[in-house]
Amino acid sequence: MPPEPIHVPAPVLEQLVTDIYVAYGMRETDAAVLARVLVWANLRGIDSHGVSRALRYLELCEKGEANVQPEISVQQPRPSVLIVEADRAPGPVALNAAMLKAIETARETGVAWATVRATTLTGALGYYTSLAADAGMIGIGIVAGMPNMAYEGARGAAVATSPLSIAVPAEREPTVLLDMATAVIALGKITQYRNQGKELPPGAAATKEGTPTTDPELAAVPLPLGGAKGSGMSLAF
Amino acid sequence: MPPEPIHVPAPVLEQLVTDIYVAYGMRETDAAVLARVLVWANLRGIDSHGVSRALRYLELCEKGEANVQPEISVQQPRPSVLIVEADRAPGPVALNAAMLKAIETARETGVAWATVRATTLTGALGYYTSLAADAGMIGIGIVAGMPNMAYEGARGAAVATSPLSIAVPAEREPTVLLDMATAVIALGKITQYRNQGKELPPGAAATKEGTPTTDPELAAVPLPLGGAKGSGMSLAF
Repeated sequence: MPPEPIHVPAPVLEQLVTDIYVAYGMRETDAAVLARVLVWANLRGIDSHGVSRALRYLELCEKGEANVQPEISVQQPRPSVLIVEADRAPGPVALNAAMLKAIETARETGVAWATVRATTLTGALGYYTSLAADAGMIGIGIVAGMPNMAYEGARGAAVATSPLSIAVPAEREPTVLLDMATAVIALGKITQYRNQGKELPPGAAATKEGTPTTDPELAAVPLPLGGAKGSGMSLAF
Repeated sequence: MPPEPIHVPAPVLEQLVTDIYVAYGMRETDAAVLARVLVWANLRGIDSHGVSRALRYLELCEKGEANVQPEISVQQPRPSVLIVEADRAPGPVALNAAMLKAIETARETGVAWATVRATTLTGALGYYTSLAADAGMIGIGIVAGMPNMAYEGARGAAVATSPLSIAVPAEREPTVLLDMATAVIALGKITQYRNQGKELPPGAAATKEGTPTTDPELAAVPLPLGGAKGSGMSLAF
């Protein structure tokens, strides 16, 4: 029998995760952003992108893939274009900074496009586009991920589950928020099925030999949404 | 037995379509753009968006939904934002003008977003995003269509097959061009299957009662790509 679930109020969980990151050496503001993005995902029921990933960021810091105290800098080669050099900042730290700067820029020019370089593990993309919606703007986010998804008709990973998020403010109503992988299911979801010992939906993943499978133990790569469409979106992103 | 196919060189077909539109009363430049967009789709094998739709624009003019001699005007409320009032111009005339103005604007600001109002029948969206790629820029196009697709799990048309196109220039290689409906198949493709008496792929369309069908005669609405994902994209567009 699985152990009784422990219920933790969201603010307590967010503070706990913040404290862990501060204890590890992150700046308080960076730690707070990272914790907020993770708990935000949990609160929306997307546990695959929630605090279950909290320690993953520390592993990335240990390996040198992420930077504990990054110095983020922003270049603005054209009035509406931002290039954010993230100095290996964890995704939430880099993308939060990029979106806040993009919002500020778009207030002047009407539109801003920020490209974030040298960051790792995006987190829930919808968090950042929601920031734009909270500021009364439409937020659009795409990610060019590392190859982790099969290209339509090909074996092995060639494109990525590269997500798309669009947030549209709706005045007094809640923001209309789209946040989706270009795969049938996100990579984190496969892990979740595996952990829960549940069978995957058909057509969602393939083995490393490229054979479609519903067995989460054999699933190596997610399959693209609608074949050529999902893999084409990923390629374009 | 079907009649022998007649082969017509693309430039001849384009001139013929231009001449038809000019004879109907369109300006020569508008007629030429419209013909070019239609033949462009045929040349890429997308006959559903090709000259088979040529007379549809005249029908729309007859009904007053499209304007034979539109006066297109452009407002620029912010440096990177264009609002194109299309005066019921046929889609290709309006979108071609909007993209050319967006390219000009983006040369200054780095990014431009053009919203086109009061136009009808977009045509092949990839044509316009390709114009950006030809100018060395990334082109992104979305369409907010009239409801013609079922929302995931709902009966009847509530969202649209709203397409997405992304064109990325690739220097000396051909442009990487994505141009896809948010439906499993585009509405024009259902007509094509019907005309050819061919069965639809499973999961692509539903009857007007909302039951999935492969019979092109019974198919009333296309189904969204990946259920919630395709209908969510359409909603956001």
